[in-house]
Amino acid sequence: MTFSKTKLVALSLVIGCVGLGIGIIIGYFGIQESVPTENESIHKKLMKEISNGRIEQNLWDITRKPHIAGRDTDEKVLVERIKNDWENAGLDSVVVHPYDVLLSYPLQSDSNYVALLDKDGNEYEVSQKKELVIDEEQNDPDVVNPFNAYSAPGTPSGDLVYVNYGTIDDFIELNRNVGISTSGKVCISRYGKIFRGDKAKHAEQYGCLGLILYSDPADYTVSWAGVYPSDWYLPPTGAQRGTLWVENGDPRTPNYPSISSAWHMSEMEIPLPKIPVTPIGYGDAWKYLEKLGGAEVPESWRGDLNITYRYGPGFNSHTESKIKMYVKTKNQAAIIHNVVGYIQGGVEPDRYVIFGNHRDAWVFGAIDPSSGTAVLMEMVRAFGKMVKQGWRPRRTLVFCSWGAEEYGLIGSTEWVEEFQKELQSRTVAYLNVDSAVNGNFTFRGSGVSSLRDVVFEAAKLVDNPDSAEVAAGRSTVYDTWKLKLADNDNLDIPYFGGLGSGSDYATFLQVIGICSIDLRYVYDYSTDLGSYPVYHSVYETFELVSKFVDPDFKFHQAVGRVWAEVGRKLSDSVVLPINCRLYAKDLQKKEGSLITEFGEKMSDHGIDLKLLQDAIQMFATAAEKIHNIADALKPNDFYANRALNDQLMQLERAFIDVNPLPGRISYRHVISAPSLHNNYGNTAFPGLVDAMFDIDADPDQEGRWDEVRRQYSILVFHILSAASTLGPVTLEQK
Amino acid sequence: MTFSKTKLVALSLVIGCVGLGIGIIIGYFGIQESVPTENESIHKKLMKEISNGRIEQNLWDITRKPHIAGRDTDEKVLVERIKNDWENAGLDSVVVHPYDVLLSYPLQSDSNYVALLDKDGNEYEVSQKKELVIDEEQNDPDVVNPFNAYSAPGTPSGDLVYVNYGTIDDFIELNRNVGISTSGKVCISRYGKIFRGDKAKHAEQYGCLGLILYSDPADYTVSWAGVYPSDWYLPPTGAQRGTLWVENGDPRTPNYPSISSAWHMSEMEIPLPKIPVTPIGYGDAWKYLEKLGGAEVPESWRGDLNITYRYGPGFNSHTESKIKMYVKTKNQAAIIHNVVGYIQGGVEPDRYVIFGNHRDAWVFGAIDPSSGTAVLMEMVRAFGKMVKQGWRPRRTLVFCSWGAEEYGLIGSTEWVEEFQKELQSRTVAYLNVDSAVNGNFTFRGSGVSSLRDVVFEAAKLVDNPDSAEVAAGRSTVYDTWKLKLADNDNLDIPYFGGLGSGSDYATFLQVIGICSIDLRYVYDYSTDLGSYPVYHSVYETFELVSKFVDPDFKFHQAVGRVWAEVGRKLSDSVVLPINCRLYAKDLQKKEGSLITEFGEKMSDHGIDLKLLQDAIQMFATAAEKIHNIADALKPNDFYANRALNDQLMQLERAFIDVNPLPGRISYRHVISAPSLHNNYGNTAFPGLVDAMFDIDADPDQEGRWDEVRRQYSILVFHILSAASTLGPVTLEQK
Repeated sequence: MTFSKTKLVALSLVIGCVGLGIGIIIGYFGIQESVPTENESIHKKLMKEISNGRIEQNLWDITRKPHIAGRDTDEKVLVERIKNDWENAGLDSVVVHPYDVLLSYPLQSDSNYVALLDKDGNEYEVSQKKELVIDEEQNDPDVVNPFNAYSAPGTPSGDLVYVNYGTIDDFIELNRNVGISTSGKVCISRYGKIFRGDKAKHAEQYGCLGLILYSDPADYTVSWAGVYPSDWYLPPTGAQRGTLWVENGDPRTPNYPSISSAWHMSEMEIPLPKIPVTPIGYGDAWKYLEKLGGAEVPESWRGDLNITYRYGPGFNSHTESKIKMYVKTKNQAAIIHNVVGYIQGGVEPDRYVIFGNHRDAWVFGAIDPSSGTAVLMEMVRAFGKMVKQGWRPRRTLVFCSWGAEEYGLIGSTEWVEEFQKELQSRTVAYLNVDSAVNGNFTFRGSGVSSLRDVVFEAAKLVDNPDSAEVAAGRSTVYDTWKLKLADNDNLDIPYFGGLGSGSDYATFLQVIGICSIDLRYVYDYSTDLGSYPVYHSVYETFELVSKFVDPDFKFHQAVGRVWAEVGRKLSDSVVLPINCRLYAKDLQKKEGSLITEFGEKMSDHGIDLKLLQDAIQMFATAAEKIHNIADALKPNDFYANRALNDQLMQLERAFIDVNPLPGRISYRHVISAPSLHNNYGNTAFPGLVDAMFDIDADPDQEGRWDEVRRQYSILVFHILSAASTLGPVTLEQK
Repeated sequence: MTFSKTKLVALSLVIGCVGLGIGIIIGYFGIQESVPTENESIHKKLMKEISNGRIEQNLWDITRKPHIAGRDTDEKVLVERIKNDWENAGLDSVVVHPYDVLLSYPLQSDSNYVALLDKDGNEYEVSQKKELVIDEEQNDPDVVNPFNAYSAPGTPSGDLVYVNYGTIDDFIELNRNVGISTSGKVCISRYGKIFRGDKAKHAEQYGCLGLILYSDPADYTVSWAGVYPSDWYLPPTGAQRGTLWVENGDPRTPNYPSISSAWHMSEMEIPLPKIPVTPIGYGDAWKYLEKLGGAEVPESWRGDLNITYRYGPGFNSHTESKIKMYVKTKNQAAIIHNVVGYIQGGVEPDRYVIFGNHRDAWVFGAIDPSSGTAVLMEMVRAFGKMVKQGWRPRRTLVFCSWGAEEYGLIGSTEWVEEFQKELQSRTVAYLNVDSAVNGNFTFRGSGVSSLRDVVFEAAKLVDNPDSAEVAAGRSTVYDTWKLKLADNDNLDIPYFGGLGSGSDYATFLQVIGICSIDLRYVYDYSTDLGSYPVYHSVYETFELVSKFVDPDFKFHQAVGRVWAEVGRKLSDSVVLPINCRLYAKDLQKKEGSLITEFGEKMSDHGIDLKLLQDAIQMFATAAEKIHNIADALKPNDFYANRALNDQLMQLERAFIDVNPLPGRISYRHVISAPSLHNNYGNTAFPGLVDAMFDIDADPDQEGRWDEVRRQYSILVFHILSAASTLGPVTLEQK
């Protein structure tokens, strides 16, 4: 076959052009810089990498010594250990942030106690100064004797009054209805129901000279099982340590970080307790309560000691005796540390997904918080391994080991205060684990409602660590959660509650508006325990955990896996998995409760409830729209994705008031805050609801209702502001 | 020539491959989606489009009627006009935002006045109730008679005392050194030097029964020229209206927007003046001051009336007479409006460059603010035309016509309060023009130092409207600015000063930390005028402007051109023209002044000045680094550009304190704020410097120095926070 020159040229041209055309197509579509998308396949690798054995080893290592905040066992030994581990794990950087803060300790050489005083002033029925050593593991000179941090020192004596749980309602009931004034008395309150700092605050408000806190068997044991060492329930000698500080962060530097240039408020001005407060076990409490005089208390005030519970004041059988408290607890400045490690995002390094867990423990802390710390360390190692294998998340992962949480979220609060501007403009979410395993009944996630689904989805991907549950056909963490802790409004899904102020998420969420979650395995709430039984006692040991709670550390592992997957999803998704529709539903639900409880009364006082309804409706509409826009976004439209994600990220910020809530130093979240009368609790619409509290008893009706109206207007404004945050960015729809 | 099949295939393959290769190269490099970059060529078109003739027409139209806030001439007629104009100009959307706010008016039917009272209580030497109509243009029933907004009503009488400018130093001098108590007296102060609201505040603090404000010829006329109508200086009958509100926004809703759900503070609780205050002309003031008794005042207290200035109290020649004030000014709620228009950004619609000018005037407002409004309207038209021709800026342009600025920046403040969350997270800069042309001496830009260069560069691009200057070889606005108003520290560049609280930038900058500028043409400051002479009088008319200030409207045009170019640059640059190095220099300069003035005293009280120095050094280093990174950025690296721009944008936010400055309701900027004793002034490190004010005279030395230390620590922290904002986004360098 031959070709003429002309034909040859023509053919060459055709072939050349075809080649050119194919080339252009390949060049344009084939070699475009790859659009960064989520790497979903990593989740299986990541989960597989998280090992229960290593978590067990971590927990063993951490709990060899007590590691209270401000002491070297925590601030040097563990800080160094974690820093080194994280550097070795392959994190891009690890930074230790020290803060000089005010802590509080008992005098080990002159321990706190409680006693009876006879009419000659002689002490008898003296309480134990230390918890009994049941297992040799607990016999460590560094065990800090039971105390309540920031108690005032002092040795008050007087008539004893029993105040039940020491809630605001209990004090109102006693002083207003029962007719027993607590003023000038020494009071005894059982632990449970509310944050102990609020018990102390109420006692002080109601004029008590001092407050004794004890753990009643009703709240820390069960009738069908023994106490430690035969089971994990609280023995009579166990006493709950714990802080009394009702705000967060270094008490001397409200709103500002305790860095070297910090100014310190004088201790006189800080709203720390002005009365002595100290904890005892129920073995000791029994000695005082069984002698108490006065009328019998009603059913709801009775604990499970084998006595007749009475109010007091004073003693029946020892009528001339007084109760005496001997409290030498003292405030003391100390340096605490946060360890913060980073895996820098490959696409958006200026967007953060933050994991946090505190490191300090009252004693060994095998549950609180070291179960979480052991998990955190293993999770970081697993993430580091993914990075070493070439993976990198879209956004930056930040891992935080907080110091001095037990004293009042001090490490996390100081860090948030120091970096508040950057965190507020860059943080996608804060993911907290405090005690990873409070029990082995079911997994429980709590948090801001917009993050509910990302937790649900992660829980669905994690194998159930409970073999009985697996055998019953519930193969995932989610399945058991849904069964054992269902949502009351919809039994088909698990319960996902809000956040109070119980752990390090509080400052992130309540002060700077970062959407947050808290994850843990929990015990069976139907037992009505005040907390897991050995909480903050010397018996929170590795032995107890490995014997009674999680022998195979599979529950720990499951928490780590859910935590890692939630963080992976938030850091790697192109569109952030923040669900505004759920937020809208949550607002509607909160509004419903508000109307049920206060609606009629508010209307009667001229408050237009429609303003709130309309604002929430506007929010719901904006939520609907933004998700429709999100669904239609193309992954390669970088700017549109970023802009939309910024709106989703900023949503929570819109609920932060420029002023703190009334009566609080720093909480500013108008939708959800710790209750004013229970820091652990969660109040919807806190400014408004606090203003409504016991309003009928206020002699200044006009002033009080004006405050309600003011709070109502602030609430409505912030919901409108949130709707606008989600609305079109050129604001024109407002 | 013939080819074998084999050779042919080979040749085809070669040609095909070459074609393919070229195609791939073309496809990859040639047809990439175009990287959005700045369109620099638009600036010439834009400038050319801005017409002096149209500005003149706008000014004529706007000034046909007085248009005070809260009345239909402003809130209906002008609002509708602007809205329609902007819609026709091709803006993407135009929204009118109404707010229900507290304003204040005199009683037209029963005007305010001042008089002498003889011993029988008969009035004589009664002041003019209205300014004299000099030109028929001023004869309008809607002219509001001279008054000071938010004055308390009342008719005090008593001995008269002259308090010079009514500064805090003047009151201290009188009461502490001269030995004349102002308590229980009626005081008279000349206008000038400081904000009139502060004069009233000082008078109230120092116990005055009432305050008369007048414009002294020394401050509102010159010796070498006549007064209006022969020149633009203030005639004897001219009186300066003006607000006394020392904070910003609706006085009833501090920190929150006056939307329909707003809660209103009771007027009793608002820190509005509690004494009557009213303005008079120097024709009237002469009648009272020439009769005044007491010692002669020193040189610096003397004005230019042909009298001997004396302190009082009481009168020389009319010893039994008292001065009486008759003030019927009343607060009144009204609806005010902002008009806000948008040109949506083509690449980053969620980033805003905001232009603002207020619309309301005390009377005709031909200078304040309508000279600016006329320019704004023309500039918007020009931008709209660019859009119609296919241009679209990278970021969104927002144009704002504010209501009720004269009463205390009310329109802008309520809007910022309503959209604070979105504005804080999305706004690049706020660009203000109030009175565009206060004079024809030189252009003057003021603002946050990081925006200095973008203003300089724009001023270099704009033709000099002053033909004499052009003839002298200074062809640009910048050239004359540099000559006539040079920087004292560097005569080679123009002076670019900071911002007080004189116009609508205040809430943007001082409350939510948006970097801001203010642009205007000014009169010759060497004349020592208190302001341009006819300021806030009935004589601020189109006739006066077109006759004495800017007959060709070329100065107006020049302001419009600089304004447009600054906004264009900020909205269209790939990397934001925010200069952090200049901010660092500015901090160093402020630090130098602080050390000079207070350094020794602070050191003596144990304050470590090195903490501040180190913080500023850290800031300077971070500034240097971020600009080096910016210089190396590739325009097509979308995310890196966005992230870096976010850091630059957030810089100013880092200086906003979570708490307001002491003694202020809402100002939170720790680097620069209106002076506590002069709202128009600008104080560096205001929290600290205010705490140092007159410190030696404070009997509570310990408490006062503790406050200084507290403020010092807040200052240092915020500078560190700003350094960290500019630092690496993964925070590891801290």
